[in-house]
Order: sequence, then C-alpha cells, then structure tokens
Amino acid sequence: MILQIATGRPNESVGAVIDIARDARKAQRQLAAVSDEGRRDVLLAAAQAMVERTAEILAANEMDVSAAQPEVDARNLTHAMLQRLKTSERGVAEMAARVRDVARLPDPLGRKLGETELDDDLVLTKISCPLGVIAIIFESRPDVIPQVASLALRSGNAVIFKGGSEARNTNEVLVSIWRQALGPFPEVLPDTINLVHTRQDVTELLTLTDAIDLVIPRGSREFVRYIGDTSRIPVLGHGEGLCHVYVDRSADLEKALAVAFDSKVQYPAACNAMETLLVHEEIAAAFLPTIIQQFKSAGVEVRGCPLTIALAGTANLVPAEEQDWATEYSDLIVSIKVVGSADEAIEHIGCYGSSHTESIVTEDPGLAAWFMEVVDAAGVYHNVSTRFADGFRYGLGAELGISTSKLHARGPVGLEGLTSYKYHLIGTGHTVAMYEKGERAFKHRRLT
Amino acid sequence: MILQIATGRPNESVGAVIDIARDARKAQRQLAAVSDEGRRDVLLAAAQAMVERTAEILAANEMDVSAAQPEVDARNLTHAMLQRLKTSERGVAEMAARVRDVARLPDPLGRKLGETELDDDLVLTKISCPLGVIAIIFESRPDVIPQVASLALRSGNAVIFKGGSEARNTNEVLVSIWRQALGPFPEVLPDTINLVHTRQDVTELLTLTDAIDLVIPRGSREFVRYIGDTSRIPVLGHGEGLCHVYVDRSADLEKALAVAFDSKVQYPAACNAMETLLVHEEIAAAFLPTIIQQFKSAGVEVRGCPLTIALAGTANLVPAEEQDWATEYSDLIVSIKVVGSADEAIEHIGCYGSSHTESIVTEDPGLAAWFMEVVDAAGVYHNVSTRFADGFRYGLGAELGISTSKLHARGPVGLEGLTSYKYHLIGTGHTVAMYEKGERAFKHRRLT
Repeated sequence: MILQIATGRPNESVGAVIDIARDARKAQRQLAAVSDEGRRDVLLAAAQAMVERTAEILAANEMDVSAAQPEVDARNLTHAMLQRLKTSERGVAEMAARVRDVARLPDPLGRKLGETELDDDLVLTKISCPLGVIAIIFESRPDVIPQVASLALRSGNAVIFKGGSEARNTNEVLVSIWRQALGPFPEVLPDTINLVHTRQDVTELLTLTDAIDLVIPRGSREFVRYIGDTSRIPVLGHGEGLCHVYVDRSADLEKALAVAFDSKVQYPAACNAMETLLVHEEIAAAFLPTIIQQFKSAGVEVRGCPLTIALAGTANLVPAEEQDWATEYSDLIVSIKVVGSADEAIEHIGCYGSSHTESIVTEDPGLAAWFMEVVDAAGVYHNVSTRFADGFRYGLGAELGISTSKLHARGPVGLEGLTSYKYHLIGTGHTVAMYEKGERAFKHRRLT
Repeated sequence: MILQIATGRPNESVGAVIDIARDARKAQRQLAAVSDEGRRDVLLAAAQAMVERTAEILAANEMDVSAAQPEVDARNLTHAMLQRLKTSERGVAEMAARVRDVARLPDPLGRKLGETELDDDLVLTKISCPLGVIAIIFESRPDVIPQVASLALRSGNAVIFKGGSEARNTNEVLVSIWRQALGPFPEVLPDTINLVHTRQDVTELLTLTDAIDLVIPRGSREFVRYIGDTSRIPVLGHGEGLCHVYVDRSADLEKALAVAFDSKVQYPAACNAMETLLVHEEIAAAFLPTIIQQFKSAGVEVRGCPLTIALAGTANLVPAEEQDWATEYSDLIVSIKVVGSADEAIEHIGCYGSSHTESIVTEDPGLAAWFMEVVDAAGVYHNVSTRFADGFRYGLGAELGISTSKLHARGPVGLEGLTSYKYHLIGTGHTVAMYEKGERAFKHRRLT
C-alpha cells in the first residue's frame, strides 16, 4: 500500500486525522526555523524528484484514469473531471517548473512589516511568519499537490492534503515523492506533508480548530461553498465572481469597447469575467449598438433591459429578467442594463456584485476616484478589463485563488496569504511597573 | 420609548436585525467616501454631545443601577458587574476624552500598502479600506459604546451594538446621543450606529454572513468563547492569555528577576500576565530562591514542580499538578517548572501556551533569535515583561482587545484591525487579450 509510505501510517482509523495534524504541527515548528535557502533547496529537490520519477507518477495516474473511465460512462464523473485528472510527461515537467518558480520567489517570512522604538533599548518589530498547519481539500487535479506543497513549504507551513478518491493513486505517489525528497534535509520532517483519504477524515478535519489554522478548498463553486458552510476552521475559498463593467457617459468609446469586450470574451469561464455590463443612458445610443454587434460576432448571447433592447437596433436580444442580474454565467452570455447615473450603477453593483472585481470606464478622474472609493470589492478598476484580477498579472508570482473575503487575504492570494505576523519585542529587562510608576515614559518613535 | 429614537424603529420583530444590518450597509457605503477630516469632526461632535448631555446619561445610568441592585442581591448579577455598569460625571468626561484621542489618530483609510507598475500606464495599488458592518456584543460596561463607535467611524465602518439588558437605558441614551450628533453631517447617516436588544437579535445577527463582516464580543472569557462557537460570521475575540517567561541558563539574574516579577505581579488579572515561569536547571539554584522570596513577599501563591520545591529552601510551596500548566490563573498565583533545556521550555510553551505572549530571558542573542522564530505567539519577547503586550504600549493609540488568531489581526488590535484592503488598478483601456496574444508583456516594477 502506497499510503503507508505516503503518510507513514498503516491505518486510517477514526482519530487518525488529529494525530496527523499534531505531528504536522511539530514538523511545522521545525520548518519555521529553516532558512530561506533551506526552504528553497527543498522545493528544488522535490521538483527534481518529480521529473526523475515521472514514470511512477504516470503509471499511478494511468491506474486512476482507467478506474475512472467506467465512472464517466456511468455518469458518476464528468468528462471534464477525467480530463483534469489525466496527466502526462509534459504535465509532470510543467508541475516541476511551477515548483521551481515558487522556489525563486522572494522569502515571504521574516519581512519587517513595521518597527517602533517604544523607549531606549526597547524595540518592537512586526514581522511576517508562517500560518502553521494548512489543510487543502481538492477534487481531481493532482497538480494541486506540487503547487500547494511548494507554496506552503516556501512560506514555512505544514500541509494536510485530502484529494478526491478518483485521483488516489496519483496523489499517493506525488505525496510519497515529496516526503522522500525531504530525506536529505534533516530539519524538514516528512510530516510537513501529509495525505488523508476518507470522507470521514474531512468531517473530522473540519472540526480541528486548534490543530489546523486554515482550510483551503479547491474545486467547484458548490464544493467550496459546502466546505465554507461546514468548517469550524477559517476557510480561504476561491470567491464567486459576479463582476461588472460600468460605462459612464464620460467614457472614451474606444476604451469602453476594448474593456467591455475583453472582460466578457477573452475567457468567459473565469471568475474575473464580466457578467453584467452597465451603461449610462446618455452614452447608450452611441455605445450599445457597436458593442452588441461585437458580442454577437463573438458568439455572445446578449440579454438586455428594455432600453437596451430598444437601442440594440436589428440585433435580436433576449429580455433580461431579475435573475440575470444575480447570475454568474461563466459562459458566453452577458446581461446589459442602462442606468440613469453612476449612482444607480454603484447601487446595482452593491446589490448584485460579489465583491470580486468591478471596473468603471470614464475620462473623469474625480468620478473614477469616487467609484473606486465607494465600491466595495477586492478589485476596483478604472479603464481596465476585469480579467486582470489574477495573481500572475498582479506580479505575485503564484496564485492560490482569488479571495472575496475582507479578512486576512483579499483579491489574488499568493505566498503572502499563507503568512501571518508576530511582534518581536527586545529589551534589557524592561518592566511595565517602570512606566506605570512614571519612572519612564514611552517614546513611540516609528523606525519603519 | 428611547429605543425608537435610538434605532428609528418602533418594533423589535423577528427579522428586524437583517433590516438594520442592510441599512447599516447603506450608511457604511456613504461613510466610506467621507474625508479624513469629516470622520474626525463627527467624533469631536459626538464627544462634545456626550459632555453636554451628561445629566441625561447619568439619569439613565441611575435607572439601570437601581434596577440591577435587586439582581445583585438575588445573586443573578455580580457586584463586579454592577461596578462596571455604573458611570459618573467623571466617567462620561473620560469617555469623551477617549473619543477625542481616537479622532487624533492618523487616518487608517487610504494608506498605500503597495504599488506596482504592471505595464506602461497600468498601475496597481493596494490600499486600506473599511471592513464594512461590525457587530459588537458586550456585557455591562456602557463605555464600550463610545469607544467602539469612535474606532469604527474613524475607520469608515458602521456598527451594530448589542448590549446587556442590565445596561439598557444607558446604552439607549448613548446611542441616541451619537445618532443625533451625526445630524449636522448629511453624509453620515444615523444608521451608521445601531442598537439591538434581545437575545433573539443576537441569534439572528450571528447568522448574517452576508450582511455583517465582523463580530466583536466583549466580556468574560466564557462569553467570548460562546460567541466564537456560535457565530457563522468571523469573530475578533480577545484571546485567552496563558503566557510564560523562560529564564535560560544564560540569563542575567537581575533582568530575570525584574521580568519575572513584573510579568506576574504588576497586574495579575490581565491576559498578558505570566502564569507559568520556566527556569533552566543550571540557573535554578541561583535564581529560584530569590524570585520565590519576592513572589511570597508580594502575596503570590507559588505552585512548583518537584525540583522547584526542592530548591525553594524554606518557602512552603504547593506542588504543581498537570492542571496547573494549563490554567490561566488571572490572579496572584504562579506555577514554576524547572526544565533541562531551551528546547524543553519551547515544547512546554507549544503544548500549554495560548499563543498570546511568550518571553525569554537570556544574554545569548542567537538563542533569543531562535526562540522568537520557533515560538508561535502573537508576541515573542526577549528580556522584556509579558505585560507590554498592549495597544497603548505598542503605540497603536487605542485597543479593541488582543487577538491570538493568526488570520487578519494578531496581537493588540487597534484601528488597523478594523480595516481591510482593496486593489485599485488604473489603465487606459488595457485588455488581457493584448498580453495573451504577446502584443505586450508585463513589467511588474515595484514602485513602493
């Protein structure tokens, strides 16, 4: 059984997850003290091991794909899931390359986030540190393992993976390769990386508020929502994306066409694609016929409010219903609404938006600044396609997902989202009594 | 009924909280666009109104205190709760002074947390912004209202207060005064500040994951834990404090005595007071008799491990039991354990500590650095009393509590803990298609 190699545990008995989590915590404490270079070397070794053991990975993957085929035929598994499950020599090389990319990113730990001299010889430093133990629950895609393992280890965290049963063999080999790759690094224990399998494990895992610091679900929207609703541990879930572009009367028409078209058409399945286009009534007659024409040529189904339909000219539009404003199509469908003012657009966004990414097209910088201030979303854009909301485009180097939460990490989440901070305070025997008695007074001089 | 003035709503029917939360959200959107000066002026006006209407506040408070007295006699309410409930002319003046302090703090909004030029004329800025709607659930102390209202409004957030029924009249007058003080500021709606009363309201409130962004419980440890266990909304709760001082063999004895004594004795009821003193065996004989003598003189009950008891000399010590290492005494009691190494001390802290504040006393900077790296706590100190863990001492200007969570805010939470961030992206009609087609390439030049 590969599982025994992978997790070092022969049984998956009830209560096993808490033990795995505790050992992961111990391993994480040791990892926290490993140098930048040490953590980088571990990733490079794991990338190398994956390439060298490509044949093993492909053999295990072939077993999973073969076992999944009847499930697809019986419609228990979709064809898309099978595609995501399948990997190749090129796929493994690609996984290894992404791990090396993460190794090259600057160290997210030990960054000085602030420094204050509280008094003579008493200096407070706010410094980035690992989160701790992270659990990742994912479906199908085995490439989640090297991706998340590299991000977690680079940022000093231990991980517990729970993959889908359809990818069990591939996941076991990958985790086994990673654990064995840690061998030459005595300060990085194998328990830094763990794999659990059963549904029962997940149920138990989501209750371990003391043992696990963060849960990251990866998969369909329904799956992410289910984990979010079930977990007692904080969840960092890829957010839903109901994004808008608002074309103000002060817009430059060329920019409006470029931004609206790209936001919808460039990759409509993405969470940062536009679902609803809002257009100021004073520019609607000049703008709508052209953009609708462009959408139609690109195969986009357009659903419009009555005014949009009236202005569309010859194009046959579907009337938009209330439900359309609340729908993330993730497809070549767009709803269009004519609004009387920027205020009405902002009101609409506040009501239906998912706080993901919202863009205004205008040549009025004051209006743009106001829009960006009052619209509450992870990204607020001016004259830019919503499709830019992405960790690589933002220059974060890697992305775990896009968070629409307002706590901890917001927007594209990279390495920094896997860190917390702590305060270091260094003195020479300082006591609070000195200050309470008035023998000394705080200086509070900001150093950085 | 004062409630009607306070919240503008005559009934507390089921479902009322969701309406209050929605109106608070609308008010918050407007507040987000109010200038630094505008938000400062609101606080100064509210402080002024509280002072001018002191008589009203005291009359309402007198009603609450009178009504509470029989409850204290019947032991449904503790005498300490009655003391916290009672205010005075000086108490009101003090509340107003604290509000003016918050008004003077630098603006927490619109701070540039990072800036990257993604490409020519395409600049990404990470910028601080309000969290949104914050619910505060508290017991007794009416001064929570001006304190939290000032912090919330200064940082652009709307608040929903749920106070204890024993302080109902006082709370109603205070919220009413604040709402009325907003009158001269048309851009700050009364619904920015709200009050709800019933237990049913709390139950409903804790389920409103879309309408409320953060819940802050203020009160006893049991109360905070109850809210944390019940809420579906993220909770920012004052953390438990089981703090340690570790005196290494390399410690300077004078510093060790000062740090250990201050950490326990200066204010033992505080969450940042030391509960357990860990001492390296090689320094135990030199250090323990003196510190135990000092503790005894200060009326501290000392509970020791067998080695501690052996070394204590004449002092009669209580043997420490397993339970002692896991107890936050919040009182003049300390447990002492002799350890064989810094490793053992760190292991003990990892096992029993509450990730609040941990201090090492040593003259070995390498050991100190390692301790501060591997110990996972909001504050890790070197040669400093644990009692420094406090928002005012850290120079934050005001404190909502001390968080032992690793997500969002950690350690003393000031204004910054009530903010989130968003990404502003400003371009000139940039599309992702340009980059995907290779017509343009990202520059990712860090500006700040």
